[in-house]
Amino acid sequence: MGSNSIILVSGGMDSCVTAAMAKAENEELAFLHISYGQRTEARERRAFNEIADHYGVEKRLDISIEHLAKIGGSSLTDENIAVTEADLASTEIPTSYVPFRNANMLAIATSWAEVIGANTIYIGAVAEDSSGYPDCRPEFYAAFQQTINTGTKPDTHIEIRTPIIQLSKADIVKKGIELNRSAAPNWSCYRSEDWHAGRAIRVLSATGFEQAGVSDPIGYNQDKNFGG
Amino acid sequence: MGSNSIILVSGGMDSCVTAAMAKAENEELAFLHISYGQRTEARERRAFNEIADHYGVEKRLDISIEHLAKIGGSSLTDENIAVTEADLASTEIPTSYVPFRNANMLAIATSWAEVIGANTIYIGAVAEDSSGYPDCRPEFYAAFQQTINTGTKPDTHIEIRTPIIQLSKADIVKKGIELNRSAAPNWSCYRSEDWHAGRAIRVLSATGFEQAGVSDPIGYNQDKNFGG
Repeated sequence: MGSNSIILVSGGMDSCVTAAMAKAENEELAFLHISYGQRTEARERRAFNEIADHYGVEKRLDISIEHLAKIGGSSLTDENIAVTEADLASTEIPTSYVPFRNANMLAIATSWAEVIGANTIYIGAVAEDSSGYPDCRPEFYAAFQQTINTGTKPDTHIEIRTPIIQLSKADIVKKGIELNRSAAPNWSCYRSEDWHAGRAIRVLSATGFEQAGVSDPIGYNQDKNFGG
Repeated sequence: MGSNSIILVSGGMDSCVTAAMAKAENEELAFLHISYGQRTEARERRAFNEIADHYGVEKRLDISIEHLAKIGGSSLTDENIAVTEADLASTEIPTSYVPFRNANMLAIATSWAEVIGANTIYIGAVAEDSSGYPDCRPEFYAAFQQTINTGTKPDTHIEIRTPIIQLSKADIVKKGIELNRSAAPNWSCYRSEDWHAGRAIRVLSATGFEQAGVSDPIGYNQDKNFGG
């Protein structure tokens, strides 16, 4: 059991479920939100703070990095690139892919973990997204773990955890509903009405609800690839 | 031979020598400067542009990341932390260590490389610094290479090169003098009089000049750990 853990929280469903799971495993949580010029920034930040409030998380770090938008290459940050529908059956990389984004985020999380002495970093990556987003694959996280092991101080021990990486979108929806019912009856991941992270993502989320056999109460959506 | 390469250039000696070596191996160079709230930012940026001008590099990306300063934990970014003398004989991590800095920088470089189609990233890390800075060790770069291989698109191939990692500070000084004499007679790494990156670094640099058996013409110093 990690006693002091950092959770990467975008504000979407995947990270919301990941935060709920981390809460059950840790004494102290620290929430990290990273915005990088994505179009949905304001609503994601609001959701981040709602989730942090709900869990009484005091340690919050809200980092705004502009370099991914400056570097470009993604429809999430560049208005000149059209957002295409994400297609799980396709092997093509969607235009919403932000090059090497999760590595940038994990690097920031690791720097913070080393300073505050956190021994675990949770990220709500989902392997189902792997065909579209290479930095959602389990082997990417294994490699990054080795990068942490070799690139931090000898007495630093930080473990990356990806608790929902093997879940299907349907299972994540079910898990979210289950955790909301048991651990947080007065609060729901589905409360915010405008967590819409773009059309490509809406399609994926709708698929998740459909597969879970429940209706999406408010057309809820998550920011995939970050871990919601 | 890489035909299109990104060089991480802080503006210090190590990156200056690395850039000269990369120039000989590549058709096209792209220079990346990353400032992160370090105290010596302005003079490093000036040196970066001088080196880029010298090599006629048009593709330049100047990224300012504030999160490392915000996260803190280093005397390079936090004025409340005293700068201690770096001591190569000691196994203690110097206060100038910026937690996981090189991973943050390589993540940015990789994002940019994937967007512009660069196939090599050069960084002037020096293993001699490893006892003080864990992210200067060859095993760290091997792990990061694996992170790139697993976390980027299938058709992306980016190789990290650390051409001076096994050189001593003395050898780097010698190499710099040699490259300046042969490749750039009208220009010198030693021209800028105020490339002083703090007291800890001054000591290391002085040691390099001493071991090389040459005098430091202007008390030149490099920003160690980044690769100068």
